[in-house]
Amino acid sequence: MPNAFGKLFTVTTWGESHGPAVGAVVDGCPPRLPLEAADIQVELDRRRPGQSDIVTPRKEEDRVEILSGVFEGRTVGTPISLLVRNADQRPGAYDEMREKLRPSHADYTYQAKFGIRDHRGGGRSSARETVGRVAAGAIAKKILALGGMAQHGAPLEIRAFLTQVHDIAVPAAALENFPTLAAVEATPVRCPHGPTAEKMIERIKAVRAGGDSVGGIIECRVRGVPPGLGEPVFDRLEADLAKAMLSLPATKGFELGSGFAGARLRGSEHNDIFESRGGRVRTATNRSGGTQGGISNGEEIVFRVAFKPTATILQPQKTVDIHGAETKLIGRGRHDPCVVPRAVPIVEAMVALVLVDHWLRQSAQCGTFKF
Amino acid sequence: MPNAFGKLFTVTTWGESHGPAVGAVVDGCPPRLPLEAADIQVELDRRRPGQSDIVTPRKEEDRVEILSGVFEGRTVGTPISLLVRNADQRPGAYDEMREKLRPSHADYTYQAKFGIRDHRGGGRSSARETVGRVAAGAIAKKILALGGMAQHGAPLEIRAFLTQVHDIAVPAAALENFPTLAAVEATPVRCPHGPTAEKMIERIKAVRAGGDSVGGIIECRVRGVPPGLGEPVFDRLEADLAKAMLSLPATKGFELGSGFAGARLRGSEHNDIFESRGGRVRTATNRSGGTQGGISNGEEIVFRVAFKPTATILQPQKTVDIHGAETKLIGRGRHDPCVVPRAVPIVEAMVALVLVDHWLRQSAQCGTFKF
Amino acid sequence: MPNAFGKLFTVTTWGESHGPAVGAVVDGCPPRLPLEAADIQVELDRRRPGQSDIVTPRKEEDRVEILSGVFEGRTVGTPISLLVRNADQRPGAYDEMREKLRPSHADYTYQAKFGIRDHRGGGRSSARETVGRVAAGAIAKKILALGGMAQHGAPLEIRAFLTQVHDIAVPAAALENFPTLAAVEATPVRCPHGPTAEKMIERIKAVRAGGDSVGGIIECRVRGVPPGLGEPVFDRLEADLAKAMLSLPATKGFELGSGFAGARLRGSEHNDIFESRGGRVRTATNRSGGTQGGISNGEEIVFRVAFKPTATILQPQKTVDIHGAETKLIGRGRHDPCVVPRAVPIVEAMVALVLVDHWLRQSAQCGTFKF
Amino acid sequence: MPNAFGKLFTVTTWGESHGPAVGAVVDGCPPRLPLEAADIQVELDRRRPGQSDIVTPRKEEDRVEILSGVFEGRTVGTPISLLVRNADQRPGAYDEMREKLRPSHADYTYQAKFGIRDHRGGGRSSARETVGRVAAGAIAKKILALGGMAQHGAPLEIRAFLTQVHDIAVPAAALENFPTLAAVEATPVRCPHGPTAEKMIERIKAVRAGGDSVGGIIECRVRGVPPGLGEPVFDRLEADLAKAMLSLPATKGFELGSGFAGARLRGSEHNDIFESRGGRVRTATNRSGGTQGGISNGEEIVFRVAFKPTATILQPQKTVDIHGAETKLIGRGRHDPCVVPRAVPIVEAMVALVLVDHWLRQSAQCGTFKF
Repeated sequence: MPNAFGKLFTVTTWGESHGPAVGAVVDGCPPRLPLEAADIQVELDRRRPGQSDIVTPRKEEDRVEILSGVFEGRTVGTPISLLVRNADQRPGAYDEMREKLRPSHADYTYQAKFGIRDHRGGGRSSARETVGRVAAGAIAKKILALGGMAQHGAPLEIRAFLTQVHDIAVPAAALENFPTLAAVEATPVRCPHGPTAEKMIERIKAVRAGGDSVGGIIECRVRGVPPGLGEPVFDRLEADLAKAMLSLPATKGFELGSGFAGARLRGSEHNDIFESRGGRVRTATNRSGGTQGGISNGEEIVFRVAFKPTATILQPQKTVDIHGAETKLIGRGRHDPCVVPRAVPIVEAMVALVLVDHWLRQSAQCGTFKF
Repeated sequence: MPNAFGKLFTVTTWGESHGPAVGAVVDGCPPRLPLEAADIQVELDRRRPGQSDIVTPRKEEDRVEILSGVFEGRTVGTPISLLVRNADQRPGAYDEMREKLRPSHADYTYQAKFGIRDHRGGGRSSARETVGRVAAGAIAKKILALGGMAQHGAPLEIRAFLTQVHDIAVPAAALENFPTLAAVEATPVRCPHGPTAEKMIERIKAVRAGGDSVGGIIECRVRGVPPGLGEPVFDRLEADLAKAMLSLPATKGFELGSGFAGARLRGSEHNDIFESRGGRVRTATNRSGGTQGGISNGEEIVFRVAFKPTATILQPQKTVDIHGAETKLIGRGRHDPCVVPRAVPIVEAMVALVLVDHWLRQSAQCGTFKF
Repeated sequence: MPNAFGKLFTVTTWGESHGPAVGAVVDGCPPRLPLEAADIQVELDRRRPGQSDIVTPRKEEDRVEILSGVFEGRTVGTPISLLVRNADQRPGAYDEMREKLRPSHADYTYQAKFGIRDHRGGGRSSARETVGRVAAGAIAKKILALGGMAQHGAPLEIRAFLTQVHDIAVPAAALENFPTLAAVEATPVRCPHGPTAEKMIERIKAVRAGGDSVGGIIECRVRGVPPGLGEPVFDRLEADLAKAMLSLPATKGFELGSGFAGARLRGSEHNDIFESRGGRVRTATNRSGGTQGGISNGEEIVFRVAFKPTATILQPQKTVDIHGAETKLIGRGRHDPCVVPRAVPIVEAMVALVLVDHWLRQSAQCGTFKF
Repeated sequence: MPNAFGKLFTVTTWGESHGPAVGAVVDGCPPRLPLEAADIQVELDRRRPGQSDIVTPRKEEDRVEILSGVFEGRTVGTPISLLVRNADQRPGAYDEMREKLRPSHADYTYQAKFGIRDHRGGGRSSARETVGRVAAGAIAKKILALGGMAQHGAPLEIRAFLTQVHDIAVPAAALENFPTLAAVEATPVRCPHGPTAEKMIERIKAVRAGGDSVGGIIECRVRGVPPGLGEPVFDRLEADLAKAMLSLPATKGFELGSGFAGARLRGSEHNDIFESRGGRVRTATNRSGGTQGGISNGEEIVFRVAFKPTATILQPQKTVDIHGAETKLIGRGRHDPCVVPRAVPIVEAMVALVLVDHWLRQSAQCGTFKF
């Protein structure tokens, strides 16, 4: 199942950038969840292109249709099929890519793997595939919001945001508190620190003017996760989060808690001392980033994801075609100088998918039979 | 299957640190592979503790027994069961941990998840679990060595090594060439750059003398991988590598190719230009790190893994017990001041498992039926 | 993944009888297969209701739309999303079933399992779900037709047909030869023996006139299967066929080769003696039904499936409602007196899915690496 | 994972008939279950050969060793590794089979599939593989016994027994009540009807004297299953039971409830009318056999499994060798004239595995989050 994610709450996404539609099937959804298209639409709207002058001008309505699994406003426990028609296709715009291999795109590797490819807009390798993830993630978010709140006293919140664009980074001190959604959504770069956000926007505009692109870093924090999610060995919570993140287009790195900087510390500096607080076992610090031994410890889950600069640039580039002959690409057309802001809802969607899946697994193994 | 890894070449590991044994079952192994215990023993010996004065003094023979799946020196296509008895157990040494929660260990999270735990030496959360991974990985390595060579003209080589311990890092220039196995194994820290290796050893000794521990970074390079391995979406090759690495004890980060530094580059700097070289499509640079769109492009796969300092230190630490009462841990007994050198064969084993699995998947989908 | 089937060629079906649509996603399809909607439509048309006076008069166009995975007439190796809109829905016709539990339907069990159900026409439990199976099976059939023929010299043929309706059975002697598709499709009951087919039609008409229903038996034969498909233990070929058949609505039994009658034989009567024929190892008889030890032996695969009479009848029946109160159902509306003829293409579709999946698995494990 | 069974409670069996050992790994077991080797041994003893004069005289102690996953008498939620050493191996006794293909055994198909095989006693295709299933099933049985009783008021009981050997069948009237374990175990044929059991024993002795073998039928009944187990589509409870049964050596058929005879009934005769009884929804009859729409309805689960006669007979048989040359097999050595009685605990084990797995799945999807 190369296009499916999750063991119990399973999402299969499908669709090419310039085919008739993209979508997803969610299998294993708990029954009786209140759900309507609007719940999904709100997240798709966050992901949608064409919303500001710093992202791709592709125009897509991205209206989601729920084709199954919901009856009279509630899920019935059967697969939920989600459909989003592609609108702004411009197939002619991609004739140049029929044989030419775009540098640092998936053109060559898809051709090498399958012996054939849908060259229009990257086909399946396009970030348009993430429409299905975000739609499915919206369902997962709603499960966590309703189911989680009821069970653990505090709402589970997943908050992703930009901490870096190119070499512009948020000062560490500005991130002490859990950022509000409003702060994140206040600017199109989705950086909760206003002064940094302004500089990021300036940079992206300058880069776009030069027909170039830049990368960046997203941090994601999750609070309200109960202790006990994650498996001891291969399916550690951070292993599944790392997989989820590295499965996103343009990602190059993942780190949890202290991350790469943690390699520079001594054990006596890095260990998170346990203490009793608020009637439960807590840690005094959180260098672990919310898991120990692969299992959530009830502290905030904190991780960062590195995104490379978009491969599409509006500058001429040397390359070869699928026959190996040298040629040149003349960049033109639509172009997204920095995809990172639009990746924020996608990161959150993947986190929600991981958490719901692990919550179901934990409940099955440790909550079904009592001895 | 919380303790299984791989879709077609599947490894299930089992065993606790101080139970009777640890082991693994390999399901889906190709038939007719020449295999004997010695093939596995050589990798287990690289992982084995007690081999130098900078690692844990735990004494384990780690003799592997092949219980099934091999007949007259060849695999027969049925599950291969691998068994390693635990020897140096000292159960009494762990009485202190029966109720006390060791900071930054998995004691609390296992207890929270399962409501019970084998407290002896960390039980299942111990790095001793990786014996099964290394044993299975040795089989995967042999498949790649024999099967890969025959098919692609050049041997597939997986080389992991240390680039950093604490704040001592290999100079970038020293890593231009693919390191030889001999260079890696020349010192117990498994850093192929001699002068840096010496400093690392000094540092580890100093840290051990203070009853403390340090982390580090492993880089892994793989050459000889054919183009086409990896799946378009969730099971991208780097996603599965990231999961494999973050599933290892003490890991905090993963980055591929340009990694986190790539976020600081422009697209015009980061793109790997295609060219024709040696009769095939190659890239002029390798910031992508060997994959594009999640699929191998035939270039070297390059990634790095961050390890935090070992949680066990020989210093007193404040903590709580499983009832939430405050207490103190007096560090004593065996202690591994830096686990990173011993993680080298484990990283390689996980890479081999990922590659064999994806190779089989690629062969199934794209090599079975021809149209 | 409760709604997915197959490990490498995976089909996820979705949709309720009276929701907006039904469909399937096929993940893992080999690339470069020539495919267009017409290839699928031909099988959907065989399954479609309303085609004769012995089946349900529900009117459905059942036009399939391919939403992804195909480019310029060939599969590209990415998921194939298949959509069929529901047309003849009459939701009002099902108001009676909102609370009343229809005997031997899934009304009670769905309610008990999920605590909610889409009562309209059985929702997900309706045979309408099999639209997605037949659509996916049509792709599998085409793979076997094109890929199989090229590799093994003889076309792989899957032929299902009725051997029994109520107590009317085909004489054993009439089934000595592999029935032609034309003979099966010659009558709406899909029994290749003309005289028996006529009697079956008479019986079904008589039963329908009485507002009742009848069951029957389908036999399926497959020739051209190479030796080696199937796994030694749990995923024996017949185990997966049995699962595929018992996953169909209204099925009550499965038998392979000698089946239940084989229990009455002695080993000396039952054993299939090996001989050399046509340059390969063959069996003189085929009581095994085409597999030995769970793996295909190259002989014809022969199995039979028992279908109970349709639960929907046009007679009043006592029952209870979802609150446990006694009530009565007045049968009325559309009604299918014998579903077995329409199950023929569904059985064939499931066989094709099983065979493609096992073919890919066999190719992966035993055809990728050569030692 | 060709040698694994179950999605959440997963059993991987391993081992060849004449290799060093056989065993299983159980992954996903709920924590805190009281478990010791004796719990498993009792079921292995029921399966063990050499216990009466009507089964194979192979002498095996079959002592199970628990290598992991249990601490101080309780499961800890980690994989349980089970090991049984092979004792009575006589490898020399199988030299004849090194190249000769035994009729209706798996010799040819394993050779065709893998290009190699362990010919000693059938290797992996031997019924000896079922040791691992029975061991794992014993754990599943204990979960159902302890966990089920607590939750549903009545103990869950799985009872398999012989209803037919060759052409000797239990009279239908004798099976009206749920047979007791004592009645089943009263004779070595495990038929709870004494007079029939005696005739069966006579027949098996006569057949053995002639160097021949016979088949038979096992019925299995399960009571105490709650409504709601099983999935709507592919993973219907009966589909997974059918797969479980057809995955056993020598099985040729499976039928649930009315089975093949149900095909001869009218809907008005076959439907199970709902009624209110004992405060819950019940059916007046049980032709459905305990499931509707693939999901348990709380009634007794009733199914039957057909076993062919053992392929090994002590009579000369014509055959070919692996090179296709004609040859002859001279039957001799150990021989089991009727394997069906020993299959009784194996059938029960597989049922327990299916039920625990579906119970966990049901609990996860429908019992974790409440809306």
